[in-house]
Parts: sequence; C-alpha cells; structure tokens
Amino acid sequence: MSEFIEEKFREGVSLRFDIKQRLFKSQSDFQLVEIVDSTHHGKMLFNDGCAMISERDEAIYHEMMAHVPMLCHSDPRNVLIIGGGDGGTAREVLRHSSVEKCVMVEIDSDVVEGCRRHIPLTSSSFENPKLELIIGDGLEYVAQKSNWDKFDVILVDSTDPVGPAQPLFGRDFYKNIFACLRQDGIVVAQGESPFYQADAQLSLLKIIGEFAKIRRPYNFTNMTYPGGLWSFIYASRDRNPLSFRKLQLQPMFYYNEAIHQAAFSLPSFQERTLREYIQ
Amino acid sequence: MSEFIEEKFREGVSLRFDIKQRLFKSQSDFQLVEIVDSTHHGKMLFNDGCAMISERDEAIYHEMMAHVPMLCHSDPRNVLIIGGGDGGTAREVLRHSSVEKCVMVEIDSDVVEGCRRHIPLTSSSFENPKLELIIGDGLEYVAQKSNWDKFDVILVDSTDPVGPAQPLFGRDFYKNIFACLRQDGIVVAQGESPFYQADAQLSLLKIIGEFAKIRRPYNFTNMTYPGGLWSFIYASRDRNPLSFRKLQLQPMFYYNEAIHQAAFSLPSFQERTLREYIQ
Repeated sequence: MSEFIEEKFREGVSLRFDIKQRLFKSQSDFQLVEIVDSTHHGKMLFNDGCAMISERDEAIYHEMMAHVPMLCHSDPRNVLIIGGGDGGTAREVLRHSSVEKCVMVEIDSDVVEGCRRHIPLTSSSFENPKLELIIGDGLEYVAQKSNWDKFDVILVDSTDPVGPAQPLFGRDFYKNIFACLRQDGIVVAQGESPFYQADAQLSLLKIIGEFAKIRRPYNFTNMTYPGGLWSFIYASRDRNPLSFRKLQLQPMFYYNEAIHQAAFSLPSFQERTLREYIQ
Repeated sequence: MSEFIEEKFREGVSLRFDIKQRLFKSQSDFQLVEIVDSTHHGKMLFNDGCAMISERDEAIYHEMMAHVPMLCHSDPRNVLIIGGGDGGTAREVLRHSSVEKCVMVEIDSDVVEGCRRHIPLTSSSFENPKLELIIGDGLEYVAQKSNWDKFDVILVDSTDPVGPAQPLFGRDFYKNIFACLRQDGIVVAQGESPFYQADAQLSLLKIIGEFAKIRRPYNFTNMTYPGGLWSFIYASRDRNPLSFRKLQLQPMFYYNEAIHQAAFSLPSFQERTLREYIQ
C-alpha cells in the first residue's frame, strides 16, 4: 500500500493524497508544518494537517487572490500580504510592474524555510528585490501607526480561523487593516468554504462591513481543499470589483476576464445566507 | 475509529466520508451499487466505489444539469434522460410545467431500487405520472427509429466513461442522440472534471462537434466529487446557451440566472485545452 498524507476535515470528510516522499516536518511555535512530494499533485504544504498548496493547482488560489484586487485598483504600488508564507501570493503580486514594494508579514519562519528549501515554484518570490519579507506577527504590524495609510492593496492570506490565524478573523485586526489601507485601497481575505463554513464567512463579512462600504465574496475552485468550492472576501471603501483593468501579463493558469466577472456570481445558498451583509 | 466509505480516484487522491450505517449493497449486472447513511452528507449513493450523489449537495448537480437546457429552450415538452437512476435529474426536469412527458432510460434496476428504498429525496420523481421510467439500455433506446425526432431536451446523466457508461461517451451513441433530438433541441451531457479528465472532455466535444454547431462545457462545483470542479457539455444545432428564460420556480439551492451565465466562463487552462472544439 502506498504512503499517503490525509486532511481530516471536520465535516466527516477527509482527503488523502498518495505521496512518494516526506520532505520536511517541523513542529514550529505555531503549528505542525509538513511538506511532502505527492504522486500526482507535486510538492504539497500542510499546516496542522490541512492542505495549503499543491504545486499542481496552487496557481488557482494565488492568481485569484492577487489579480482580482490588483486589476480593480488603477495603480497599485504598495502591497501588504499578511501570511502567505509559501510565497505564491507574493509571486503573483510581483508580476504587476506598477508595484514598487510588497511587504509580506508571515508569523511562521518554518513555513518560509520549508518552502524556500522545497517549493521554489512559490518561494522564488522571496528573492525579488521589491519584496520585504518580515517574519513577525501581522497583528502587531498593522497596529503600528507608522504602517497606516500606506497600502493600495492588502491581502490577508491566512490559514483557517483556528490556531495561529484565529485573530486574523477578528474585529481588532480589521480595524487596523483598514487603517493601513489608503482611502482608495482594496482588501482581499481568504474567505473559507461557502458550503461548509458559511458561519465564518458571515462573521467576517459582518466585521468588514464596519469599515468598507463595498464587500462581497468571490468564488473559485481549489482542487485540494475540502469540497473544492472556496471564497475570497473583497472589500473596498469605493472600488467596484466588477470594474477592472485588462490583464497585460502572460496568460494565466486560471484567471481571465470572464472568470473575474463570473467569480462574483454566487450560488443561491450562499447568496441567501449572506444577502444582508454584502454590498 | 468511525466507519467510512472511500472513493479512490485515479489521480492519487481519495475522498473518505464518515458513515453511520450501510443501507444497501448489491453487485448488479453492471456495477457495485452501495447506499450509505453518512455522518455529515446524508444518504449517499456509490457506483463501483465512486460517489454519485449525497443528499447534502445533490441539488447542485441536478439543478445545473436540468435547468440550464430547460431554460435555454423556449418550450420543452418532451425530455429524455439517459441514466440518472437516482431520480434527481428527473425531479428537476419535472418542476417545469411545460413538460408533457419525461422518459428516463436507466440500465441498472439495482440503482433505481436502492434509491427508491433509501433516497426518496431524489427517487420520489419515479411516482410522477409524467415520468416514463424504462429499465433498459440507453444505446438501444436511441437507436430505435420510433424514438427519433421526438425530444426537445436530452440529458445524458451517465457515470464515468468506464464500466457500463463507456459507450455513452462514443460516436455511435451521439449520432443516435442527435437523431432523437428535434431540430431545435438541446443536449446536455455529464462532462467529467475539466482539471483531471481534460482528455475525456476533449474527446466528447470532438464527437459532439460532428452533430451540433453549438457545443461548449459549463462548470459547477460538486462538493463530493474529486477536486469539486465539474462540467456539463451543452450542445445544440442553433440555441445559444446564454440566451435563456427566467426561472419561474421556487428559489433553487444553487442555480440562479447569474450562475447560469457565469458557468459558461471557463478557467484559462480549460479554455486553452478546448478552444478549437467549442463554439
């Protein structure tokens, strides 16, 4: 029998991926960080037993997190990423030539170190001279007044709202996120599964509603997450997510203009649950 | 340790669902048919170890298969379903009051019998007087000249192209499907995963291209299928899938007008693979 790594999801589902080799395992101060070489999905990163990325489909998550807000903004120069330790979100942000600086604040140096060693597909962005990689607490970073009113786009690329990422789903954090955001800026946050985690999504939208007039989820399908269907939350004081510039880069793996538009069309069950909290 | 049922998918992924009870198991003439009561997804049907439906998310598949073509047609009266033994597709078709008759040809009486006993959520459609349920071979049914030029909408609700459903992905079958279809009719077929089974999708589109000017996939996410992302193939001699009537029924679980439109926006990897074969 072949070896495997398993994500046990709390809704009575688990996903097993066959693996060729275990490459990295470390109990950091925050979580169990594992990197494996899978038989069909390339290298995969797991934090606390949850699949974060696979080389085979990571582009979907990272393109959809980065390009939607980057193209809704007319001139994104300064970008902040909270989390995103594998480097994939930074890689996509840094494709945009308008970017002067991308600050990435990742709490867990073991994630960064493991990916740097084993997943260059995403971590090669760490070598980009426009990237400032800070190993530190995103909560503290956004609370510092010297970082306020500085960013055009802020991406909250967090794990699930348990363990180290729990405060990243809270009101105090978002108050400071919007303090760091320029008046015409855009925030995008990892928004969980609209099918399995409607509560987390609702709670996040309620909090964000205190700070941003425009907020709504947009969906994509990530093959290696439970159920596949997943959301980001888009938030801005005034920028409409359906008004966006044309991508002037090489063709992407998943993102295109039709997909950008389509992603904001929500299934009825999601629309009904969130109706009062989206704008 | 709790009991589970597992789908071992060939791409080094498997999905396990925790179960409370095994309700039905039969090795039919065609496949192994199993029905279980799962802990979080209600009753589930598995054919040859592949998840077909779960009560929790079956509406997604069945709404998207039925309502897209039913609403693209101006007056669908006669509908043919090949396969669809759980009854869910027929249930959605029969919501449309224009329907005079829905013929369903399912090869495996064990699927029908198991669902009739254990999954009334979908199989209650078998009691609808407008439904003619035939236990028989879809290939033979569509080859009969008496069935030609009779149907406004034909739905090929098959399992994967292995085992009993293999001929349902072939040219001879589609030649007869289009013979059974009225000139202005619409065909929709289960189209596999655009991510994992691009080859099957491409092959189906090539075959359908011989008979229908308009053919293209549309996507949805089914939580209990590998990867989640899944496709139907839409085909018609002249009806545009983006021109459709408004749904005049109760609100659905997944389908709505925005989702109908959005489903035809394909991720770049799928668009690139299929570009020459869609219209």
